[in-house]
Amino acid sequence: MAHGAVAVWQMAPTIGDLDANLRRLADTARTARDRGATILVAPELCLTGYDIGPLDDASTAPDLVDAVAAIAADTGIALVMGLALREEQETWNASVIVDRCGRVRAIYRKTHLFGDLDRSRFSPGPGTIPPVDLDGIRVGTVICYDIEFPEPARLAALAGAHVLAVPTANMTPWTFINEHVIPVRAFENQLYVAYANHIGTEGETTYVGHSVIAAPDGTTVRADALSEDLLIVPIDPADIDHRRARVAPYLSDRRPALYHALSEEDR
Amino acid sequence: MAHGAVAVWQMAPTIGDLDANLRRLADTARTARDRGATILVAPELCLTGYDIGPLDDASTAPDLVDAVAAIAADTGIALVMGLALREEQETWNASVIVDRCGRVRAIYRKTHLFGDLDRSRFSPGPGTIPPVDLDGIRVGTVICYDIEFPEPARLAALAGAHVLAVPTANMTPWTFINEHVIPVRAFENQLYVAYANHIGTEGETTYVGHSVIAAPDGTTVRADALSEDLLIVPIDPADIDHRRARVAPYLSDRRPALYHALSEEDR
Repeated sequence: MAHGAVAVWQMAPTIGDLDANLRRLADTARTARDRGATILVAPELCLTGYDIGPLDDASTAPDLVDAVAAIAADTGIALVMGLALREEQETWNASVIVDRCGRVRAIYRKTHLFGDLDRSRFSPGPGTIPPVDLDGIRVGTVICYDIEFPEPARLAALAGAHVLAVPTANMTPWTFINEHVIPVRAFENQLYVAYANHIGTEGETTYVGHSVIAAPDGTTVRADALSEDLLIVPIDPADIDHRRARVAPYLSDRRPALYHALSEEDR
Repeated sequence: MAHGAVAVWQMAPTIGDLDANLRRLADTARTARDRGATILVAPELCLTGYDIGPLDDASTAPDLVDAVAAIAADTGIALVMGLALREEQETWNASVIVDRCGRVRAIYRKTHLFGDLDRSRFSPGPGTIPPVDLDGIRVGTVICYDIEFPEPARLAALAGAHVLAVPTANMTPWTFINEHVIPVRAFENQLYVAYANHIGTEGETTYVGHSVIAAPDGTTVRADALSEDLLIVPIDPADIDHRRARVAPYLSDRRPALYHALSEEDR
């Protein structure tokens, strides 16, 4: 039986208007909740835009996390969403997990930075995070480029995730990620991947849309390339456990003693 | 400039006739060489069949490796192919790499055993192997179920492989592997994956065919579900190096210090 449902919001933020984007997040959270979702995933840097140059103080302020938490509490749905976060001397490309009561349960800081777009503005995050239990559904999170590496998703699965929430800002020509990589991450780890992308153009970047929720059997629910959209898929942790034990035992059939070279620094 | 070309042979062996299957391997090696291939990849257990019950002494004899080596030397093309190999008290599901002069350069023993079909007959291999340099193309090998895990392919890429040769015997309903997993392994590791499958039916197993050579950009050359076939794709190591440095730096952008949990035994 489904314990809840995960929603993915494909959208384009209004550049330069944090309040407008927070209001739209609140509206979408309410819509997703009314349609049965218990967790809403929004894109990377969804309050500011991604390819918009340097981020000012207001766009990286910790009180944005408080504003997101208030939206979760007001609407009664858990949120996983991307924002920029300044802490002391560091600015992070972050994904925040807030539960339906508005408690900030985890802040993940992107560990695999993408080219100059990330490196010119963000510090590399210190590590992956364990999944958060949201009313029986364990939710992990990574951001955009992270999911293109097999390792972070594998770490989330080994730590028990049922759902991997991936705020993203994936652009042309990289539709191969949406089409093939996301379903494979779901299949090889036997979990759901909820990949929430931007649409539209910022600077020289055109986002590919095609947000997707991929299931452990590799099947997908997809948005198109150009429209804002809200995808919703029910999640049944017992079915994931069954599949991991009986159908596709990719986690228990691993040979970890053979994998030490994966964490050697000089590779 | 291409240093050579890899060929994938999709086929169905004649059950119970080792000599006939060796003759067909020789014929196919000659054809592949005449069409410009420098490396031929043949399926898992391609001299015996896969789902055929217990393997007798003749089907696991080390002199089958000598026979394969002689075919490589006679035809002047390197071979990577699957066979069963008995050594002392162990029987392995093996992949043999023989160079165009007939030297046995590596014997890989399947590390991830698939269900009872493998476990009832084979011992789990002791580890992955480093790639073998075949006239400037570095070729690694894993077998069937191994490639469904991200770790063995990643280990091959980190060890410098340009081509990962994968003898397989993939059956219904697992076409997701051919369709999505193989191109993603090529893309995420920026190497070629040459996946050589069976066709036809043995016991309760129906093979899906759809052998495939996937390139680092995720594009594929594919066989159909039902016909024997020979796929050939040129390999340019310099282009792989260029892509790894400039286009998709998935190997150099890894964060190995964060991956230690991947090799923890209790996961």
